[in-house]
Amino acid sequence: MNESYYRYHVFFCTNQRDNGRPCCQDHNSSAFRSYAKEKIKALGLAKNHQVRINIAGCLNRCAQGPAIVVYPEGIWYSYTNHKDIDEIISEHLINGRPVVRLRI
Amino acid sequence: MNESYYRYHVFFCTNQRDNGRPCCQDHNSSAFRSYAKEKIKALGLAKNHQVRINIAGCLNRCAQGPAIVVYPEGIWYSYTNHKDIDEIISEHLINGRPVVRLRI
Repeated sequence: MNESYYRYHVFFCTNQRDNGRPCCQDHNSSAFRSYAKEKIKALGLAKNHQVRINIAGCLNRCAQGPAIVVYPEGIWYSYTNHKDIDEIISEHLINGRPVVRLRI
Repeated sequence: MNESYYRYHVFFCTNQRDNGRPCCQDHNSSAFRSYAKEKIKALGLAKNHQVRINIAGCLNRCAQGPAIVVYPEGIWYSYTNHKDIDEIISEHLINGRPVVRLRI
């Protein structure tokens, strides 16, 4: 049984481009990822394979970013502030309801 | 329609630890990821959202690594050489047959 090793496996694109093209790190995505990781830990959701918050390289949705993808569902989000991250956590990762307004 | 944006979204853990604990980068996982990415490109599978080969931070399966996870299936692998990577590509990513001997 390796399917769903993590109930929710969340990848934050933290890629930094240096060539002037848009990239997720232009939006401080690493800091948002750290915020999410700490919040998940504080909520007790980092245990027992419930939620894993991961760094990822370029997810190649740069123009729509900063991008997050939640697997195994394969639901993609963009976000602009901590409130957006909080809503993805409280709605999707805790209550299983994807946040329609943030989907890309 | 954002589900399955990529038919196969493959994450290679490329985390480097400096504290003596095992980590995937001890096994040159970044180089294996580059090998896989180039091979997928050469096979024409990088186009049209067929296969995406991504860098990831620590996937937290360090002791069983170097670790790969293929989403949306959520199938995990470990590997030791290029032949293993070739087999994951030819069997799983091209023919849809997970490689049982490499699963973790």
